[in-house]
Amino acid sequence: MDQNTTHSLQLRRVAIDTYRENVAYLNRNCRVYRSEGFQALNKVEIRVEGNGAPVLAVLNVVDDDAITAPGELGLSEQAFEQLALPEGSAACVAHAQPPASLHAVHRKIAGERLGRDDYTGITRDIVENRYSKIEMAAFLVACAETGLEREEVLHLTQAMVDSGERLNWGEPLVADKHCIGGIPGNRTSMLVVPIVAAHGMPIPKTSSRAITSPAGTADTMEVLAEVELPPDRLKEIVHIQRGCLAWGGTARLAPVDDILISVERPLSMDSPGQMVASILSKKLAAGATHLLIDIPVGPTAKVRRQQDALQLRKLFEFVGDRSGLHLEVVLTDGHQPIGNGIGPVLEARDVMRVLRRDPQAPADLREKALQLAGRILEFDPDVRGGQGYALARDILDSGRALEKMQAIVAAQGPRRERLEPGRLCRKVVSPRTGTVSAIDNLRMARIARLAGAPMDKGAGVDLYHKVGDSVKRGEPLYAIHAEFEADFRFACAAAERDSGFSVEG
Amino acid sequence: MDQNTTHSLQLRRVAIDTYRENVAYLNRNCRVYRSEGFQALNKVEIRVEGNGAPVLAVLNVVDDDAITAPGELGLSEQAFEQLALPEGSAACVAHAQPPASLHAVHRKIAGERLGRDDYTGITRDIVENRYSKIEMAAFLVACAETGLEREEVLHLTQAMVDSGERLNWGEPLVADKHCIGGIPGNRTSMLVVPIVAAHGMPIPKTSSRAITSPAGTADTMEVLAEVELPPDRLKEIVHIQRGCLAWGGTARLAPVDDILISVERPLSMDSPGQMVASILSKKLAAGATHLLIDIPVGPTAKVRRQQDALQLRKLFEFVGDRSGLHLEVVLTDGHQPIGNGIGPVLEARDVMRVLRRDPQAPADLREKALQLAGRILEFDPDVRGGQGYALARDILDSGRALEKMQAIVAAQGPRRERLEPGRLCRKVVSPRTGTVSAIDNLRMARIARLAGAPMDKGAGVDLYHKVGDSVKRGEPLYAIHAEFEADFRFACAAAERDSGFSVEG
Repeated sequence: MDQNTTHSLQLRRVAIDTYRENVAYLNRNCRVYRSEGFQALNKVEIRVEGNGAPVLAVLNVVDDDAITAPGELGLSEQAFEQLALPEGSAACVAHAQPPASLHAVHRKIAGERLGRDDYTGITRDIVENRYSKIEMAAFLVACAETGLEREEVLHLTQAMVDSGERLNWGEPLVADKHCIGGIPGNRTSMLVVPIVAAHGMPIPKTSSRAITSPAGTADTMEVLAEVELPPDRLKEIVHIQRGCLAWGGTARLAPVDDILISVERPLSMDSPGQMVASILSKKLAAGATHLLIDIPVGPTAKVRRQQDALQLRKLFEFVGDRSGLHLEVVLTDGHQPIGNGIGPVLEARDVMRVLRRDPQAPADLREKALQLAGRILEFDPDVRGGQGYALARDILDSGRALEKMQAIVAAQGPRRERLEPGRLCRKVVSPRTGTVSAIDNLRMARIARLAGAPMDKGAGVDLYHKVGDSVKRGEPLYAIHAEFEADFRFACAAAERDSGFSVEG
Repeated sequence: MDQNTTHSLQLRRVAIDTYRENVAYLNRNCRVYRSEGFQALNKVEIRVEGNGAPVLAVLNVVDDDAITAPGELGLSEQAFEQLALPEGSAACVAHAQPPASLHAVHRKIAGERLGRDDYTGITRDIVENRYSKIEMAAFLVACAETGLEREEVLHLTQAMVDSGERLNWGEPLVADKHCIGGIPGNRTSMLVVPIVAAHGMPIPKTSSRAITSPAGTADTMEVLAEVELPPDRLKEIVHIQRGCLAWGGTARLAPVDDILISVERPLSMDSPGQMVASILSKKLAAGATHLLIDIPVGPTAKVRRQQDALQLRKLFEFVGDRSGLHLEVVLTDGHQPIGNGIGPVLEARDVMRVLRRDPQAPADLREKALQLAGRILEFDPDVRGGQGYALARDILDSGRALEKMQAIVAAQGPRRERLEPGRLCRKVVSPRTGTVSAIDNLRMARIARLAGAPMDKGAGVDLYHKVGDSVKRGEPLYAIHAEFEADFRFACAAAERDSGFSVEG
């Protein structure tokens, strides 16, 4: 009998999304392989004759033939796609050796400093889905705990850039901005981009979608226009408009980061080294030459103390300089949400109000956007130091920023239907008469998120008051908007437990 | 409409063994809950009205109604058993808060020293399956990296003991022994127990089954007798025979350890703090008062340097003393396998040969067992210091140890059929004439494991030569035994890549 048919199993797609981890399913009564023998060793290697590199997967044992029968090898969606073969193909299974780079992770756990080659090996193995989630967790915790030395952050950044594509805009100055996040409503990019582009400076902004926040720039821009654009279209738009506001996922920019996030977020790990490498690798891959980093500081922000913010700034500067980026860092006020809306539709509304110079426009969002845009405009050698802010204000107040935004929306493809805030609405009122003394960023983000943001564009929170406002007992502090019954209940229940507002009598 | 029926899903058992992690399956098109909304937050809480504590699970999104339909909530085998309700029950899903003790894990990652309450909280949450695997990995790496201070190891040990049952033998002196592992064939317990019990000292040995080694004491004893005995039966046997050789899994002894192992092993994490806490918590829970710890030292053993062995000894002593254990540590020669057989049947054969004083009995196994038994016999106040070894030898050579073993086997329930070494057999020969200069423990264990040990009792490796032996070119060094075609191929292929033997010409 032929070796290969005797020992092979029929490939089967098991329609389970295991969220960034390859999982293989083997029936407990498989007659070709012993599921128990594999179980303790945990990871298997799947090979198909003549199909190149094997795929590694974590093993789950199945007791239901309807999911994976004894002669079959089930693969979760990601693993099945990675193998890229039709169902029924003959596949062989073997005990997997741990990925080669895992030795480096163990050395890091033991407190060693790793080199460029180590980080290159680790990122390559992760991108090729050779790491299980527990192995990624081990890597992340090892990096967080003894901390990465700044040279290590540089190596990791460069390895992450090398893990994917790199855009080239063919321009000597390509501006970009990035906020480290954590402040709900903080949608300054959608103001900075039209202001800077109206000045003629290229600012091709590619953003991610929100992962644990209630809205990312891509989610919010999508309320107004198409954001999933192929790299060639993007290039054309930037060539003509000087700016864009697009989703970065269509290009494979530092893809290892997207995989690590699947473990970082549920673990709430956000160590400085990983954060800097993650942000700078995306920006380097996106082709930026000049970058402004916004670090909000406040009691419920990601960075809570001025001294931590300064340390983080130095790390950004070190890695930016060594990577040939012109990088500047601003520390901003992060003690409460920026703007009024939290969630894509509500944030897009705020942005458009600022652009239209609407009297209801949130002053804090306008002011912060002007500050940031001013700093970026000063990247232009022809703009005198200190004049950026006034220039940004002129561009905004003259209506040129609004025109530029409309042009960018038209170029990317305007959204046909007009989206409204979620139809389910509850107002959360002040428990007493007094002054709003604090608004908890984390709490407001969680409530908006539970309400369905960013999946439901209209879901979120609309703030009626900010810190320092006087409020009466029973007066609404904010409204929760949702589209979906279960989400609405989750959000209202969370607001009831803790509204996120402190009102002092 | 009733709140509960509107928002509930029908419980469904999904027959997938996710190996110590609760997994919930939700259809992507579920109309009651948004699978995407849960996905990023990763963990869900499953509640059933009137059913007490909720169950936490990691979420997988399903695109196949045959696995989990839109109105259903699928649960992996462990999660389904934990909820303990019939299929079709109405269950509600909510966003899970991270387990409370995870804050302590983050503090540990940040380099803090944790207290007794922290370890109690962590072990309780793990035993209640509230930790995902990545959270357990974070805990283990955090403990390994900055290391646990010895007070922390003590706290962790005590928390682990408290996580389960504790046996009480009603005796003032209850002896036990434990080897930290890593040396194939090292089946001394099956000799030490009959020798010590024949002397009249209680030694109720409960062991685990092998996890990544080719045989545990429970796996090997099972070749001769029943090992899965309810705690009451065990007590009766020990009362009469003074000893037993049973599987510890029937009593819930330090169950948190069994869960942590599911992450430790695939990560190959075995930090000194975790190892000491794991071993001592099991022994304390098993009711031992006097304990001998065997630390083999050698280039392919778990502990490779004398100075590491001494450090580990101090840690065992510190925690043992503070826990009220009389504990002694012996450092033994771990530079090659002990005995000839590796795998349950082959190791049981070696043990019986020593007990029967068979001329083919492996001298090294006999000698090591006598050394260890001698040390334990000296726990008896009536045995003069230094006389234990001679006493042990007398018990063995007089045939009293064999008689005791036969009595224990009879009491536990002898195995009816006689098991033989695996029918598939290949001899691995020496590539040259010369002297065996080294045998790699890890390699031999892996080959025996791939051959099917310990699942197939007869599978494993039978060594014909040990370090120092002269061998001729083409002379067999060892035989691989297997029962199962695929396993046999894996083992032979591994031996071909690296036989594990060094022969110097």
